[in-house]
Amino acid sequence: MIEVNIIGTGNVAWHLAKAFAAQNNAVVMQVAGRTVETLVAFEPLCHKTVTLDQLTPADVTIIAVNDDSISEVATAIPFENQLVVHTSGFTGMDVLGNVMVGGSALSRKHNTQKSKNRAGVFYPLQSFSKDDVSLDFSEIPIFIETEDEKDEKTLRTLAEIISNAVQSINSEQRRQLHLAAVFANNFTNHCYTLAEELCKTSDIPFEVLHALLKKTTQKAIENGPTKSQTGPAKRDDKRVIKAQQELLKDPMHKEIYTTITQAITDFYGKEL
Amino acid sequence: MIEVNIIGTGNVAWHLAKAFAAQNNAVVMQVAGRTVETLVAFEPLCHKTVTLDQLTPADVTIIAVNDDSISEVATAIPFENQLVVHTSGFTGMDVLGNVMVGGSALSRKHNTQKSKNRAGVFYPLQSFSKDDVSLDFSEIPIFIETEDEKDEKTLRTLAEIISNAVQSINSEQRRQLHLAAVFANNFTNHCYTLAEELCKTSDIPFEVLHALLKKTTQKAIENGPTKSQTGPAKRDDKRVIKAQQELLKDPMHKEIYTTITQAITDFYGKEL
Repeated sequence: MIEVNIIGTGNVAWHLAKAFAAQNNAVVMQVAGRTVETLVAFEPLCHKTVTLDQLTPADVTIIAVNDDSISEVATAIPFENQLVVHTSGFTGMDVLGNVMVGGSALSRKHNTQKSKNRAGVFYPLQSFSKDDVSLDFSEIPIFIETEDEKDEKTLRTLAEIISNAVQSINSEQRRQLHLAAVFANNFTNHCYTLAEELCKTSDIPFEVLHALLKKTTQKAIENGPTKSQTGPAKRDDKRVIKAQQELLKDPMHKEIYTTITQAITDFYGKEL
Repeated sequence: MIEVNIIGTGNVAWHLAKAFAAQNNAVVMQVAGRTVETLVAFEPLCHKTVTLDQLTPADVTIIAVNDDSISEVATAIPFENQLVVHTSGFTGMDVLGNVMVGGSALSRKHNTQKSKNRAGVFYPLQSFSKDDVSLDFSEIPIFIETEDEKDEKTLRTLAEIISNAVQSINSEQRRQLHLAAVFANNFTNHCYTLAEELCKTSDIPFEVLHALLKKTTQKAIENGPTKSQTGPAKRDDKRVIKAQQELLKDPMHKEIYTTITQAITDFYGKEL
């Protein structure tokens, strides 16, 4: 049985707590958050909800907060020599290092000795929404990294309790993977948004595109995206491209159309 | 029983012929193509394969060829006063109008009388690949348009034989819808391609993104893309954006990153 602490009450914290609570081989000991209100929902999923200064050690303490707050939270953890990991795709493992015990250096005049917990990363690659009840954690890849080799085994065991796709990668790979996820999720989703806007201007419900969305993703998964590319840019069909550019009234829509069309034309032009 | 002709031997022609052949209320009489080789595969799906000059009338003749060839093919159809439709999202219905009987004006010195078939559009909104055996036509929206009101009933009946989502729209709406599909399919697929490239540079298999791809599309369908947007651009997180721009080595990758990031920031900035 692996004992886990979770610091944070956002979407990642929520889905992690839910996933661990549904398993027999891990238990969430404490969830630490800033306010009673945000902690209430976590009560059924853990032994105890606490504020950060009350947190006591567990086998693994997971910091699931925004990138900007990781370092500050790590510094405020009131124990040392434990395995403490964050869940970020972007932030390096090093922000967890050289953590001062019990707060900032200034507040601890009587204990200037630098201490630290043992750092690690536990990055689940997914776009989390709190209301996503259908989320199946077993399908979500978890990328792990640890400072200390011995900790890798613990972290891997913990990750494998909830996921079928656990992999060790270094911070540089993780950062690149996170960037790839920005293209694969954030940017595709904005393309969907623009498609919805174009539908609206012609009084067409976005729903008519649903079958196309599903097929686009299915093909990219089954055959790879390169083989699945179609459309005027792929064919370098200048007549259609020109007509579509003229149809676009919003300058930002036009700029995106032109930039991605050029990118596609260049990409497949090189291949020909 | 509606009798159908199909002109063309590409992906759209193939999936239409297959879908009609699997039903009892429509029958593909003739498939017209340029070469015996391309027609062979269609033999089990229709009564007869022919060259265009041999084509005889049916209730509906569907021209399923590239945008650039529609007008030329329509002109070469050797009969008149029949319902002839094309399958393009981009091309107007008017290219089918004023069709000369039996070839170009020059080749028909002895028959200068203008004749025409009755024009229509039969646009199935999907990204078709010939090898896509899992394609379920019943889910694919078909958008119809006819010159003559009486023909709309025939075309709607035919479309409803294979699709559960048949809708009448005009050429302007169809053109806008086709443009929306470019964003929803072509551009998202290129974002997948770029994500794959970024994975490759770090020796990470693209497969690790599959769960994210599925979830992205599922959320856009269930909650709409606007509500589903996440990431540094949505949060206007300048620190992450700057770091990611620096990570991108390919100038085209960087340009796409910057353009879409700006678009997302503007889009949600306006909403705040």
